[in-house]
This record gives sequence, structure tokens and C-alpha cells, in this order.
Amino acid sequence: MINKFCTSPLWESSRTLAAVAQGAVPADTVIINARLVNVCTGEILPDTDVAIACGRIALVGDAKHCIGESTVVLDADGQYIAPGFLDGHIHVESSMMSVGEYARAVIPRGTVGIYMDPHEICNVLGLDGVSCMIEDSKRTPLKTMVTTPACVPAVPGFEDTGSSIGPEEIAETMKWDSVVGLGELMNFPGVLSSDPKMHGEVAETLKTGKIVTGHYSMPETGAGLNAYIASGVRCCHESTRAQDALAKMRLGMYAMLREGSAWRDLHEVAKSITEKKIDSRFGVLISDDTHPQTLLSQGHLDHIVRRAVEEGIDVITAIQMVTINCAQCFQMDHELGSITPGKCADIVFIGSLDKLDITRVLINGKVAAESGKPIAEFPPYRYPQWATESVHIKNPITPESFAIPAKGDCVTARVIEVIPSRVGSYERHISLRVENGLVGSDVEQDVLKTAVFERHHETGKVGFGFVKGFGIQCGAMASTVAHDAHNLLVIGTNDEDMALAANTLISCGGGMTAVQNGEVLGTVPLPIAGLMNDKPVEEMAEIVGKLSEAWEKIGCSMVSPFMTMALIPLACLPELRLTDRGLVDCTKFQFASLFVEE
Amino acid sequence: MINKFCTSPLWESSRTLAAVAQGAVPADTVIINARLVNVCTGEILPDTDVAIACGRIALVGDAKHCIGESTVVLDADGQYIAPGFLDGHIHVESSMMSVGEYARAVIPRGTVGIYMDPHEICNVLGLDGVSCMIEDSKRTPLKTMVTTPACVPAVPGFEDTGSSIGPEEIAETMKWDSVVGLGELMNFPGVLSSDPKMHGEVAETLKTGKIVTGHYSMPETGAGLNAYIASGVRCCHESTRAQDALAKMRLGMYAMLREGSAWRDLHEVAKSITEKKIDSRFGVLISDDTHPQTLLSQGHLDHIVRRAVEEGIDVITAIQMVTINCAQCFQMDHELGSITPGKCADIVFIGSLDKLDITRVLINGKVAAESGKPIAEFPPYRYPQWATESVHIKNPITPESFAIPAKGDCVTARVIEVIPSRVGSYERHISLRVENGLVGSDVEQDVLKTAVFERHHETGKVGFGFVKGFGIQCGAMASTVAHDAHNLLVIGTNDEDMALAANTLISCGGGMTAVQNGEVLGTVPLPIAGLMNDKPVEEMAEIVGKLSEAWEKIGCSMVSPFMTMALIPLACLPELRLTDRGLVDCTKFQFASLFVEE
Repeated sequence: MINKFCTSPLWESSRTLAAVAQGAVPADTVIINARLVNVCTGEILPDTDVAIACGRIALVGDAKHCIGESTVVLDADGQYIAPGFLDGHIHVESSMMSVGEYARAVIPRGTVGIYMDPHEICNVLGLDGVSCMIEDSKRTPLKTMVTTPACVPAVPGFEDTGSSIGPEEIAETMKWDSVVGLGELMNFPGVLSSDPKMHGEVAETLKTGKIVTGHYSMPETGAGLNAYIASGVRCCHESTRAQDALAKMRLGMYAMLREGSAWRDLHEVAKSITEKKIDSRFGVLISDDTHPQTLLSQGHLDHIVRRAVEEGIDVITAIQMVTINCAQCFQMDHELGSITPGKCADIVFIGSLDKLDITRVLINGKVAAESGKPIAEFPPYRYPQWATESVHIKNPITPESFAIPAKGDCVTARVIEVIPSRVGSYERHISLRVENGLVGSDVEQDVLKTAVFERHHETGKVGFGFVKGFGIQCGAMASTVAHDAHNLLVIGTNDEDMALAANTLISCGGGMTAVQNGEVLGTVPLPIAGLMNDKPVEEMAEIVGKLSEAWEKIGCSMVSPFMTMALIPLACLPELRLTDRGLVDCTKFQFASLFVEE
Repeated sequence: MINKFCTSPLWESSRTLAAVAQGAVPADTVIINARLVNVCTGEILPDTDVAIACGRIALVGDAKHCIGESTVVLDADGQYIAPGFLDGHIHVESSMMSVGEYARAVIPRGTVGIYMDPHEICNVLGLDGVSCMIEDSKRTPLKTMVTTPACVPAVPGFEDTGSSIGPEEIAETMKWDSVVGLGELMNFPGVLSSDPKMHGEVAETLKTGKIVTGHYSMPETGAGLNAYIASGVRCCHESTRAQDALAKMRLGMYAMLREGSAWRDLHEVAKSITEKKIDSRFGVLISDDTHPQTLLSQGHLDHIVRRAVEEGIDVITAIQMVTINCAQCFQMDHELGSITPGKCADIVFIGSLDKLDITRVLINGKVAAESGKPIAEFPPYRYPQWATESVHIKNPITPESFAIPAKGDCVTARVIEVIPSRVGSYERHISLRVENGLVGSDVEQDVLKTAVFERHHETGKVGFGFVKGFGIQCGAMASTVAHDAHNLLVIGTNDEDMALAANTLISCGGGMTAVQNGEVLGTVPLPIAGLMNDKPVEEMAEIVGKLSEAWEKIGCSMVSPFMTMALIPLACLPELRLTDRGLVDCTKFQFASLFVEE
């Protein structure tokens, strides 16, 4: 695949690089006295220099002859150098930060490139929103390879999204410079059932020689997984068991082993590499979703490599899994993923392989971070007004908006039971009292009223349901981060607080909030598409932290409750979900009534 | 890279494959009871089935549910199956056979695809000749990936070739379906010295996302090798020492370890893999040149894998080196090189991993060979008349054509000393008698008169020199296989036999011959471009064998003398060479006088 993520194409700099390697022209930068983590051969090589020109590597070895008067010399002083880390699958929106602030947060951690699936913004703002994120990324040093969101809407016919993507749009984006493939193909049932739209999107991608990325979350690794891979899907980050990841690698699928803020699969899936001593070239480490607090306190891929080592993966192998393996997955290994001649000079300095402490980061040969701090300066990016005013609700929301009428004294409701840190939910049938012709929350049973308001096209649609598992005693919470349609989701113990929570978000352009007894306890404003904020990671971590305290105060003891909450409308996950169109039975893919008919 | 080497593109068959994998549509073919050599994970997996449809793999695992009434079931009966073998660098012309007959010879040995550099025919017939070989290949099942010859002529200004290639021609061929990259970039001095033509050819290749293949034969692995790789060259098959191959792999260059008929590097270069226990993903096994006798008696890649195992490389690793590693080198691993869903169903059956006996070969899901015999039938291909009448000498050749005048009684001649099975030659200064104003061969000193007649454009050019090392006592030999210009090369002890040898080849359209005392002892006619014959491998091996006997009869005890002979005009190799324009000092790249000025 030809790509555009270096300072200039190799064919424009090849003659300079050859001259620099031979000492005929001085290098721009030379790194001396490094210990090279050679990801090609899987070795540590001592006393290695690297000469850099045109943003690319001209020579690896002894580079003393490449140093001229104007050359910047970086003395590694015996530190390790490794290729810059690549995150093979990431939704930047999940960090709640703009791409620029995300870049500032991850580059000092050693990340030089991400394969970004801007699935969330695409559901809200369509390809125009994706373009904004690309513009946002382009002014940063972070190489932002884009995979076009494949499943917008995630489950057509069951929800209202801001946009819709099909093979035609996919074909169009494959012409974009930044686009290297198709985003996670979550609709694997569609692939298996020969859905023309899904196969059409794959076709438009493969025709351009680009990569189809996958999402196969079934524990089945026989006929279904084979069918999915045979359809042209090259990688998958949805393994939660070692045997699933191993099955994928054996079938030639890149197994992207995930350690995100919410989904921490490594403890289990690392065994796919460690237990059988397999050739690990089809293994990749990725984050998928990372929250600001995680980025700030633990790190990004540096943290994930550390975690992999903790789980028994050899450190060189783990570094291969965030460098060359990822580059080979995307067939971009001719540009990225190794410290070898001709490649982009994306290099991390590591103080100790035990600590994996990133001390310096070069991108395209320029120092982008030093001692954990970003160095690269880049201009601000302002998202346009249509992107920051994306919450469009038809009717004013009042306590009365949450009324759920019912007949008789008592009804049996279909309740969504959520389980912390698990993607799946259960359908429970629970008896609820009817008072004055209305059903409300039942705090004693931990059953809370839930509403999803369509917020893209002012259709006025609203879906009602009940959830169990949050443990809230009094108050309400709301979010416009509500996968994948990102409509306005409200959960609460009473209608007044629910209305307050909803209106709090409407007035700040979206975000997440927790309220109690008419008081707003904490809010994370996310004005960019109702998903992101352009504040720095430190500030975001702080306000997200305050929201967590607010959650606790209203009675929820769950870790990362907003992630669990945000999945309530995701109608492609089992078993029961709630969208703006109503309850969806996600095992049969049909709408379900709120009350069970006796 | 998007390529065209399967029955149909994946995007046209993905829906069928998905249906077959799930048992909704019966497979065309199912292999049952196999032991899978899994090149992705480096394991042997027992009891594996493979379901095939549309020429591709639909499922790997348990495929009983894929068998329908019309399904062909191949019971592997516990045999091993591995991906079909790929030869990453091969000149078919060196087999002296047409592509069709070459295919018939190598497919039963497990070869399903070759990366063919039709460098020889291109020097004689230009891109039209290359097109003929592509046409020849297309009717065979053998996947013939073409790399466009990069160095035609090999050493511009020092020889006359039938054709000339530059960046414009390279750009044109990059649009051809069969072309996957640039052929071996032998002119590494040109790359290092910033030659615009060489960098231009690289640029035209890289712009299309295709692969630049290399040829770096220097023992230097510092500045020069780095400069060469930084220029965009991805692989090289010219390592003769383990440390050279290791240096290349460490620099992210695919080291193609060669075991051909003439150049047997494996004994030495295999140590690059075995001694340091490195990650071997950048190692590839290739043949470069294989003669009919080798193909017949030893095999092709099956033989090379056996040799690699003899040299201590693990058999699974060796198989990776002719399958997935090669496919990854060419960024074609999404189509070739593994038995995994979606890939072309190119599969070899192996009776025992010790013997590496290939018992059956499938290409695109169809049985192409069985028990060592080709099965696939394909129509004959006739090379056009201009391709089979390619020897164009201006003046009739007579004994007088070989007269080398000189003054005095004695001269000191620059003599090319050849060393069997070595690419390099030496320049020797040897005193020769002058009789009747002419210098002739001196059998006692083993110094033989040599002439190279231009044979492409009837220019009448002829270069004279002397060679040492063949040991011929009486007679002459001639060849139109004379790298890389493939002019008519004649060596002999007397002018009469030299003229006979030359005229024998002129009358049969080119080839190789040995004569003695007016009698033709053996001839290999090579009417296709003076390089190839469309006879089957058995016949070719027989007539080449007879020529070898003839060589012995005239006094040459060298193994494969015609290979050594054919390199005499190759002016890109050290130290002294002879072209149709005269002696070339290949260390300084300038013409040299035949006689040393005292």
C-alpha cells in the first residue's frame, strides 16, 4: 500500500539518503551509542548509531561518518532504541479528547502512529466528522492512519444515527490519503449471512489494495470464524480467550490483543503467545479504547507492552507486537515499524527494558517528546460550529417526558442487566409496581428507568426501558456517549433528576453528567460531536475523576460506570439493548416489548 | 499490492467462500485427514481438513460439513500439507526451457509460484520478449509474478544489447497485471552514486506500491549496503557469507538465500539463521538459476528446503522461507503463502517431512501434479518468428574472423582467469607468442582466444580477448547464452573450430555447442531468443548432458562450464570481462587494452 505518513515519499529522498549513508552529505540527525531493539531479527544489538535525513533513516550501524557541522547529535548513552510504537486499533473518541490532545498525551508514551477507527464521530456527523478528525490529526506529528467506519449505523433499522455509510461512501474514502483500510467490521452476522452491503464494503476496500479490519466477538472458531476471515478480514481485536486469539493466528488473521481502559483482555489472551511458543508474527498489541485517566496514570502502548511482559511475553516479542507486526498487518512495513534504512525515522528511546520508560520520541526524525513531555508544537484546530452543536432534540425535556404508562397494579418488565467490565448484558424479567398508571424506577430491586432520546435529526423518537446493575440510590445520570448512535441516554431514580441530567447535557453540547436532588454533581462537557473535548489530558482526567466521585455519591460503586452505561444502546451486542426506537432483542435481532405479555 | 494470480479476485468470491465455510454451499474440493504445516504460527496441526471453492480456501479445520455430492474429496491419509512453494527470485531462461516446460518441471516439485526476472530475454528482445514469456506463462497453472528487468543493458556503454530499459519503460510495465516489482537492481554502484536512471526506475516502481528487488554482491555491509537499502530495495539474493545475509536481515532487507545449480550458497549462508537463533521472518530460500539436470535429478524448491534442513534449519522454518516469508516480502501474503481462509488454494502434499517428498500439488484448488508428474494440461505456446530468429551477425564468420594481429615476437596480454563456481574473475598478465603477425591460443599455458560477436543489430562489432581456466586441449566452444547482452561468445584453441562453433549456433538460432577438429560434438539448440528451447525437461537434460560430455572430450573438467563461460562478458562483475566492444576493466569501469603497454 502506498501511503503518505512520512515527510516525503521515499522516491523523492532516496538519492539524499544514499548520499547521507555514505557520508557524502551530512545527516540531519545522528543517534549515537544506542542499544538497538532489532524487531526484524528479534535481537538486541549494542553500540548502534542511526543516521537520519529527510525524516527517514539513512543508516543503522556505525554513523560517525554521517555527522557534519549541522548535524544534531543525540547521544543515547547506552539507552535502548526501538521503532516508535503503533496502535493497530483505536477509537480516539473514547479518550474523550480531540486528536490533537490525544496526540499530546500518547506521543510521550512512545506512540508514533495509530490506526484510528473514527466510528463514533461518524455515527454522529458522518464522513464530514471524520474529515474534521483527520484535519485535527494532520497538524500533529502523530501518524494517524484512518480506517473508514464500516458499520454506521451499527444495526440498521434498530436505531437512528446522524449518518449512514455504505459501499459507495467506502469507495470514496479509499481515495483519501489518510485512509488505509476499512474499520472494524462489527456486523459479522451480516458477513456470515452474505449481506450485500457488508460484502460490498469489503469489496470496495480490497479493490484498492487496502486492509479490512475485523471484529469477531464470538467464541466460535470453526465455520463462522473461517467464513469471516475468508471474506477478506485481516485482523480482529475481539478475542477474550487465549484459544480464540490462537485460532485466529492459526487461520492467518492478525490477533490484536487488547488492553484498554475498559476491556483488559491481556491476562487471558497473552497465553495464546506464551503457552505454545508459537511464531508470534500474527500477534499485535492494541488499546481499542483508552480513557484520560489511564493515559495519564498508566500510559498507552508503553503500559500495554509492560502488561504483556507481566503476562510472560518476552519484551522483544512484545515490542515486535507494537511495531513490525502491526506494520506488516497493514502491509506498511516498507515505511513503518522498524529501525532500518529507508523507513520513517520514528524512534523511541527506552531507559530500561524492565521499566519500559520512554525517555525520548522521534517522529519523522524530529524530537516529538522528551522525558515524558510533548515537545512538538502545533497550531490549534477549531472544530466547526456544526460539529460542536450536535445535540438536536425535538421537544423540550421535562420530568413528564419520562412517563411510562402501564395498566393494572403490576407489570413484568424486560430489564437489561449489566455486568461491570463485561460487554454482554442479560435480559431479566422483573415485576414492577404500577402507580397512578405509570411505572417508575424501583431502587430496592436496583431497577432504573432508562430513556434514549434521538438527538441527530430532531425526530422526537424516544425509547424507554429499565436497567439493573448500577446500584444508584437517588439521582440520575445522562450521556451523549451512547454507542453507537450516541443518542441522549438518561438513567435515573426519579423523573426530575432525569430531566435535569438531560437538560444539563443539552445545554453544554453533550457529554456525561450525574445529578441528585436537583443538583448537578459532576459534568464532563464533550462539545465536539457530544463525544470529545479539546482540553488537555490532565484537565480531562480531573473532570472525569470528579464525575466518578459524583457517580459514587449517587450510589454507584461500579468501576468505569460510564463505559458500561454507554453500551446500553449498542444493539449489536447480546442480549437486550435499548435504542431510541425501543428495546431490541439482540439475539434474534428484533424489537422487544417493554413488558412481557403474560 | 493488488494482484491477479488467483482464479478470481477475493471480492468476487467472498460471499461464496463464506457460504461454503458454513456448509450452506458444498465445497468444490475438500482435503481431509491432513497434518497441516501451519506457517503462520510455526506449528504442525494434526487432523486438519481444508475446504476449497472458487480456487480459494474457504475453511481450515473440520470441513466435514462442507462436503456435498459434487465435492471432490482428497484424503491426505495423514500426510502433511503445506502452502505451495514460492521461488522469490528466478530467471527461467537459465533453465534453458520455455516457461511452459519450466512449469511442467517445477510444479510436481511443489512450486506453485515464481517471481520471475526475465532479464535475459529482455536484453535480447526487449519488453516484447518479456511479453512473450508472460504469454507463455499465462496458459500454465504456475503463478508467474514478473519483476521487470532493471538493468538492460547491465553496463550501459560497454556492450551492445538487443534492447534498453529506463524509467519510462519501468513505469509502463508497472501497469501490467503480471508485474509485481522491479527486477534485481544489479547496478548497485549506480544506486550508490546517485545515478538518476537507477533511482528513476526505483521511483517508478515505488510509486505504484510495488517491490524493488536487489542484487548487492559486495562483502561491505556498512555505508554501501545501508545506502542501497535506504534507496528502496527490499530484498537481495547475493549473500555468499552468513554475515552478509545476517546484516541484510538486521537492516530489514529480505535475505534471499540461494541454492541454484551454479551458485550453492546455502552451506554458508544458512548459518545466518542457525547460529544466532534469530527471528527468521526476513529469510527466504530461492534458486536464482536452475539447470534442467538439477530440476530433473534433485528438484526445485523441494530440494532447496531439503538442503536447508541439512544445513540445520528447522523444517517448519525452511517451509516458511518458501511460503509466507516470500509472500510477505512481496506484500502478497493476503493472497499467497499460507493455508488460511481467503487465500489461493495452492497446497502441496508431503509424504514425510524428512524426505520432503511432494506427492500432490494443488494450484487454485485444482490438482496440478500427482506423484511427481504434472497433471494440468495446457495449450502449446509458439514464440513468434522474431523471437526464434534472434541471431543477427553482420558478416559471415570464417577462421579469418578470429585473427588478432600483433607486432613483435611476443606480447603481454590481459587474460581473464575464471574460477569454477565463482562469480568473480581475475585479471592476469601473460606473455604470448606472436606468429606471422598474429596472436593465437596457447594451450600449454591454458590461455584461449575468445571473441564476442554482436548479434542483435548486425553492427559487425566484435571484441577479442583471452581466457584462462577452461583447460581445453583442442577444439572450440560457443554460446549465445552470454550474460547479459547474450552476444555470440566463442572460445577455442584454433580458428577453424571457432568458426565452426560460431556457425553451428548461427544456423540453429542460438544455443551452446562444443566442436573439435571440424566435428560438432554436442549442441544444445536454444532457438527462443538464443536462450531457451521448448522441449521438455527430460529431453533438455539429455542434450545438455551430451554437451557436457563434449566439453569433457575437448579437455574441460569444470563442472557446469557453460555457466562460468556465460559470465565472461558480464561487465558488472569484477575484475576483467570481454564484451562485443572489447575488454572491460570492471573495477574501474573503463575499457582496457588487450595488450599491456610495457
